[in-house]
Amino acid sequence: MMTYEQKFEALGNLPPQPVVPPGCNFVFYRQVGQLLTLSGYGPFWGNDLAPKCSGKLGLDRTINEGYYASWITGINLLLIARQYLQTLDNVIQIVSVEGMVNCVPDFIEQPKVINGCSDLLVNIFGDNGRHTRSAIGVNALAFDICVEISMSLLVQ
Amino acid sequence: MMTYEQKFEALGNLPPQPVVPPGCNFVFYRQVGQLLTLSGYGPFWGNDLAPKCSGKLGLDRTINEGYYASWITGINLLLIARQYLQTLDNVIQIVSVEGMVNCVPDFIEQPKVINGCSDLLVNIFGDNGRHTRSAIGVNALAFDICVEISMSLLVQ
Amino acid sequence: MMTYEQKFEALGNLPPQPVVPPGCNFVFYRQVGQLLTLSGYGPFWGNDLAPKCSGKLGLDRTINEGYYASWITGINLLLIARQYLQTLDNVIQIVSVEGMVNCVPDFIEQPKVINGCSDLLVNIFGDNGRHTRSAIGVNALAFDICVEISMSLLVQ
Repeated sequence: MMTYEQKFEALGNLPPQPVVPPGCNFVFYRQVGQLLTLSGYGPFWGNDLAPKCSGKLGLDRTINEGYYASWITGINLLLIARQYLQTLDNVIQIVSVEGMVNCVPDFIEQPKVINGCSDLLVNIFGDNGRHTRSAIGVNALAFDICVEISMSLLVQ
Repeated sequence: MMTYEQKFEALGNLPPQPVVPPGCNFVFYRQVGQLLTLSGYGPFWGNDLAPKCSGKLGLDRTINEGYYASWITGINLLLIARQYLQTLDNVIQIVSVEGMVNCVPDFIEQPKVINGCSDLLVNIFGDNGRHTRSAIGVNALAFDICVEISMSLLVQ
Repeated sequence: MMTYEQKFEALGNLPPQPVVPPGCNFVFYRQVGQLLTLSGYGPFWGNDLAPKCSGKLGLDRTINEGYYASWITGINLLLIARQYLQTLDNVIQIVSVEGMVNCVPDFIEQPKVINGCSDLLVNIFGDNGRHTRSAIGVNALAFDICVEISMSLLVQ
């Protein structure tokens, strides 16, 4: 049986480790008790956007592209969590996912987009990857990313 | 003096118990310590939308209709909490409510809409139902629901 | 070396203490364990909006004005935290900041706006003021405020 860490590595081609831009006054993680809170993040590939991850759902991006952006965002969040925890095997459970989808006003498939992140979490952590979730539409996001996701995890 | 559970039942005509759609990788609740976090939910009546609960405030829906949608959403969230807790008498306090109102760009009455949920919580739990709150506008929500609300509760 | 409280007072001209409007069923703060959660708040100056703090980024407001609104909002949140804690010296760490920027659909500089609040927190609390953060765009906010921010703090 594979560990969480082995399953994550088995995904193959992972993006570079996310880095907080110099001069910024926020951080990627804060732990209170056993609860690890992560900053909202996007579908970046290192310093760049991943391909087809800019713009708005319902206008610039298909649901499949949004799903992919949400998957990549989840991978970035796990890279961030792993940097802090040393190994993803220190994750006990995913607690919550807040998904914001950059979209036009008549787009109503936010859940199908955020499923990209939710499916990733269950692929890696099984039932411990199931989480509470919000999936909402917003009219604009930083850097014109098509999705932004924040997360909290129960850790040891 | 009525218990929380009795006050909730006394509301009368409650919607059917919410159910996570098959195949979904999220859950309705996660508990960490004494804090119970609930997924964002909407003004559903079982598998359907409740009447006059779709569309945008400031265009399709009046403030009164939004208030009602927010009230129904609160009832659904309490049905979800009760399923997990066995009884609402296990609620110690409502901690936070995050309300998202589907609206047009010039709509600025988000608090009056989310009051539907806030008033419900105080009707049931009295001072223990008072909660921290955000009430924001968004340009689009899943299934075109006019409001989405998530919640966290202190429980025993 | 100045205390947090002294640094906050040294800011000078602070707005009046925020007050929950009469009849409202929400509260400004809830504490669970050592985690203090604050309601979403805006760039108010007592009962009024602070100058140039209404409207949308990318249309009515410049990034500098949004930065200022976000700074004032942060001050209001610290006034609220201080009222509860007696003194800001009881803050251990800022845990999270959720920033919502009222903007037009092509505005993508949300982080530069929310930096107003983030920079304030680090000015007062140093490294303990660094926090996880989300900075998203929304199409509308209550009272037409240009920014709304909620926060959680680790306290003693």
